[in-house]
Amino acid sequence: MDLWFTEYHTENARFSFKIDKQVVSLKSEFQRIDVFDSYDFGRVLVLDGFIMLTEKDEFIYHEMMTHLPMAVNPEIHDVLVIGAGDGGAVRELTRYDSIKRIDMVEIDKLVVDVCREYLPQTSCKLDDPRVHIYFEDGIKFVKEKNNEYDLIIVDSTDPFGPGESLFTEEFYRNCFKALKSTGIMVNQHESPYYPNDALAMQDAHKKIKSVFPVALVYQAHIPTYPSGHWLFGFASKGLDPVADLSTSWDSLGLKTKYYNTDLHKGCFALPNYVKELLRNA
Amino acid sequence: MDLWFTEYHTENARFSFKIDKQVVSLKSEFQRIDVFDSYDFGRVLVLDGFIMLTEKDEFIYHEMMTHLPMAVNPEIHDVLVIGAGDGGAVRELTRYDSIKRIDMVEIDKLVVDVCREYLPQTSCKLDDPRVHIYFEDGIKFVKEKNNEYDLIIVDSTDPFGPGESLFTEEFYRNCFKALKSTGIMVNQHESPYYPNDALAMQDAHKKIKSVFPVALVYQAHIPTYPSGHWLFGFASKGLDPVADLSTSWDSLGLKTKYYNTDLHKGCFALPNYVKELLRNA
Repeated sequence: MDLWFTEYHTENARFSFKIDKQVVSLKSEFQRIDVFDSYDFGRVLVLDGFIMLTEKDEFIYHEMMTHLPMAVNPEIHDVLVIGAGDGGAVRELTRYDSIKRIDMVEIDKLVVDVCREYLPQTSCKLDDPRVHIYFEDGIKFVKEKNNEYDLIIVDSTDPFGPGESLFTEEFYRNCFKALKSTGIMVNQHESPYYPNDALAMQDAHKKIKSVFPVALVYQAHIPTYPSGHWLFGFASKGLDPVADLSTSWDSLGLKTKYYNTDLHKGCFALPNYVKELLRNA
Repeated sequence: MDLWFTEYHTENARFSFKIDKQVVSLKSEFQRIDVFDSYDFGRVLVLDGFIMLTEKDEFIYHEMMTHLPMAVNPEIHDVLVIGAGDGGAVRELTRYDSIKRIDMVEIDKLVVDVCREYLPQTSCKLDDPRVHIYFEDGIKFVKEKNNEYDLIIVDSTDPFGPGESLFTEEFYRNCFKALKSTGIMVNQHESPYYPNDALAMQDAHKKIKSVFPVALVYQAHIPTYPSGHWLFGFASKGLDPVADLSTSWDSLGLKTKYYNTDLHKGCFALPNYVKELLRNA
């Protein structure tokens, strides 16, 4: 049998991979949820036709969203994760004994249910006693929080559909308010390569920069996302991700497959064309 | 009309883009040569079915192969470029007044002829008076050279077909011999992501390491190459690409779209999984 999944990166460019079978296909109140078994990438989670994660390379995305801020401030105890229904960010966070509480806010309970059942590689730590899951709209949840978190991770889908409100200035303003004085916000920041993605990336950067005194962007190689060149935002009330990098992360002895402290410093060195997009945001 | 070009990254994963028209299709003694006009990537050069360059992002590959070594040693005067029939590497090198001679060795004259006619964006500097083009086998050409070049750029195709001999230990040994005592060799080093590419990358690294005292690997985001995560090798008789980075490159005032000196330092910080592949090479 010859069964292929295809994602359109633009109207005129697409990435396809061969799948062994469709594991599940459901429609929630918010989106269509599919899980496939692929030949090259292991199990794959797809929301509304877009690849959210593959078992082969989800470690890149999840490590870069979690270990990077954790290495800047070893005194992170209270973490809010918005989105991230697959549990990948939570899995990495639970590796830190120093973390006391992980509040996870996911609007779509069905995503979590599907991941619990079909994606144990990422969802395996959702039952850690420090994890509290709220099935709510992230924008509403964070609005009521003040000076409560050391770290907010915005692990959203793209800036349309259910993830749209997580790219608004109001949302970033509420995240700022919900953070303590040494607080850090990390967010998935789209890609600089294809024009429409670049516009979304510029828009997010402009808004975050208007709210946070420190607003930087870092990059990673994520081959199964459009262009493979993916960006993350690092925003804080004052901490600089490189100048204030703690020296203690290596001594924790956490094994990682992508992240390391040299790469931490290197990933903020962006290509000129990306820097220009950010300057003109 | 709905015309798509497809490249298979593996048997089970493929990248496709829509094209307006096939500009030319020829068969040389060595390979099939196609040029397409695409909607998203401008004009595209394809050899034996594999994308060699697109007008949209060739600057990444060519800047990273040239400016990086040039920034390490500002006293580079004599350069040998092997492969690179499209002229992209030569175009970047001719921007340096300090370079006195560029010998370019391309086995396939038809590639150069096609690029001169259909890809002026990359081939535009092939008539610079410092450029000498030899239509020969690179491995034979370099065998006869001793202590002659400051920089050798190996801009090869993949390690099968006409590019195969440019991935042999004998070839690297002859490059070493052809270099002066401060010599640098830079080569395209495949990708770490898909298993077969990773094997080729490990094989190249193992051989280069056995010949050169300094043998490092650096990375760039090249979205139209398989996985978008591309590697380059930096080998030298002693110069370290980061510790010995000259401070004078910025003062040259060269405008680049990808390369900059912060990124120069950052691009040697590799993900753990890539470091492990290199260690086990």
